[in-house]
Amino acid sequence: MSELRKDPIVGRWTIVATERARRPAAFVEPQPTVTAPKNCPYCQDHAFEEVAAIDGVRVIKSGSPILDDTKVFERQDHGMYEVAHSYGSHEIVIETPEHIANMADLSEDEIKVVFQTYALRIQHHRKNPCIEYVLAYKNYGLAAGSRNIGHSRSQIMAVPVLPMRVNDKVRGAKEYFDCHERCLFCDMISQELKKKERLIVENEDFVAIAPFASRFPFETMVLPKTHHCDFADGLKDREGSLAAIMKEILLRFKIGLNDPAYNYMIQTSPVKKSSSFKDNYHWHIEVMPRLTRVAGFERGTGFYICPIPPEMTADFLKEVDIHAGT
Amino acid sequence: MSELRKDPIVGRWTIVATERARRPAAFVEPQPTVTAPKNCPYCQDHAFEEVAAIDGVRVIKSGSPILDDTKVFERQDHGMYEVAHSYGSHEIVIETPEHIANMADLSEDEIKVVFQTYALRIQHHRKNPCIEYVLAYKNYGLAAGSRNIGHSRSQIMAVPVLPMRVNDKVRGAKEYFDCHERCLFCDMISQELKKKERLIVENEDFVAIAPFASRFPFETMVLPKTHHCDFADGLKDREGSLAAIMKEILLRFKIGLNDPAYNYMIQTSPVKKSSSFKDNYHWHIEVMPRLTRVAGFERGTGFYICPIPPEMTADFLKEVDIHAGT
Repeated sequence: MSELRKDPIVGRWTIVATERARRPAAFVEPQPTVTAPKNCPYCQDHAFEEVAAIDGVRVIKSGSPILDDTKVFERQDHGMYEVAHSYGSHEIVIETPEHIANMADLSEDEIKVVFQTYALRIQHHRKNPCIEYVLAYKNYGLAAGSRNIGHSRSQIMAVPVLPMRVNDKVRGAKEYFDCHERCLFCDMISQELKKKERLIVENEDFVAIAPFASRFPFETMVLPKTHHCDFADGLKDREGSLAAIMKEILLRFKIGLNDPAYNYMIQTSPVKKSSSFKDNYHWHIEVMPRLTRVAGFERGTGFYICPIPPEMTADFLKEVDIHAGT
Repeated sequence: MSELRKDPIVGRWTIVATERARRPAAFVEPQPTVTAPKNCPYCQDHAFEEVAAIDGVRVIKSGSPILDDTKVFERQDHGMYEVAHSYGSHEIVIETPEHIANMADLSEDEIKVVFQTYALRIQHHRKNPCIEYVLAYKNYGLAAGSRNIGHSRSQIMAVPVLPMRVNDKVRGAKEYFDCHERCLFCDMISQELKKKERLIVENEDFVAIAPFASRFPFETMVLPKTHHCDFADGLKDREGSLAAIMKEILLRFKIGLNDPAYNYMIQTSPVKKSSSFKDNYHWHIEVMPRLTRVAGFERGTGFYICPIPPEMTADFLKEVDIHAGT
């Protein structure tokens, strides 16, 4: 039979298929061919106004910005509702001058600069007193919500409100800390390193695990071994090992799962750090290949059905031969 | 520019594109052709063991059940995690003996029996003291997570834990009630009926609106005008008007949006009603055509980007000529 598993951070339940689970190979699907446009906008040197540039990585304002920080931020009521003009920033990080589609194919040094760039932009945006959260994330492939232009890039959003899922995580982490006087994430890392059944890969600074109550097949969580609530500050001197573990995970996806679409999201603490965040929140990265669709059940309840146990996806990813193509 | 809008129930923020919004017609897409299998399993009289049958609507146990109520329900720890074998029930509601794909094409009388059947199954399952929530929902079309068999059906899940999204709604409704001593949903109905800008259709017992902070294009919320926290009890004597408004919404989707995939979820109160649910929770139905994909930003933050304002989708749906095909 299956198992009901509870996510220790936000309290979300997942039905995890165990005995009758689908095999990992059942999720490997042919991918749509990427036809690069004749003139890739991100290959051109002067197509966009740069807001930052570091070692080949360029940050530009989004061409179709959905956020705007040129007006004053003001929340208003609208009858019983709350509304504001959509204050904030929306930036594109062009990760390489070369026309390479998947971050997995960048060098560790290039990936390192991408993460350094996120840290710098986060530090920049949070100086603005109206900004409550800065999200750095990547959509790769059509199924992950990306236009398939074939040029590796990611996005940064700075928003003036605290997003709901971040709030859930912060609250869950605080409740755990209040109860145990220990960081939930540190406890999780220590248990996962002891048991090893959901451990995909580790290096001196980071672990990558398949979460116990995974929502999606091959869902992966990358956590720094050293406790820090904040990505931008906590990353210092660990950029190289983050680049190494991220490249390895993305290569394992690419080779093992036939270059699937995926998303990753840097989950850092809210900008306005109360002293409690420092002890109980622990930054991390969620990485999710997009291999299945979410149905009504999941949308209606926030209760997921994962057709394969994370122990099996961790084993599968561990065994992928990442030197196969070289 | 766009607007930041806050959902008054769960506090989720959505960026709603306003000025530069996409036009409603931009969401109309060709749909995959449904090839009916030679032997539709739901057309056959004796293919499944029935657990209930009312006026042509049959309820059967799911062929690949992911929940099982034959063992004793027990929550256990697993190191720091919580786990249980997946106790509960998973049933399929076969809505018609005829091979008709879309509920929009059933008669109001047939749809009425479907909702009566949900009520009866909810009342049945909640007698089990281990059950915390019963979700009745529909996946229509591939993009909504359904296998495209071409035979109209829906699903009922009875689960022994309180799903996260339900918990969020119940908590939000309670906070509003504690602050205003009025039901949040009743206030919402009264404001929407006054303003009319997001009202799609109403009848004597129900309203259908495009929510103020819609996450998805053409998202629709159907609410009973009379306050009741519970679907099964609150539906009494209103089955006919619910069937009428649901058929009308689904027809407007089918004709106006080219037979799109959609989900609907009955959002009733948790089984174990504390007295506070009675006053502050108000059952409703979420109906969502599946026209766009969720990207990393939404998954990472629970913060949505809706590419068209709900006022525009409400206008569009209102103007669909539902007698066009007759």
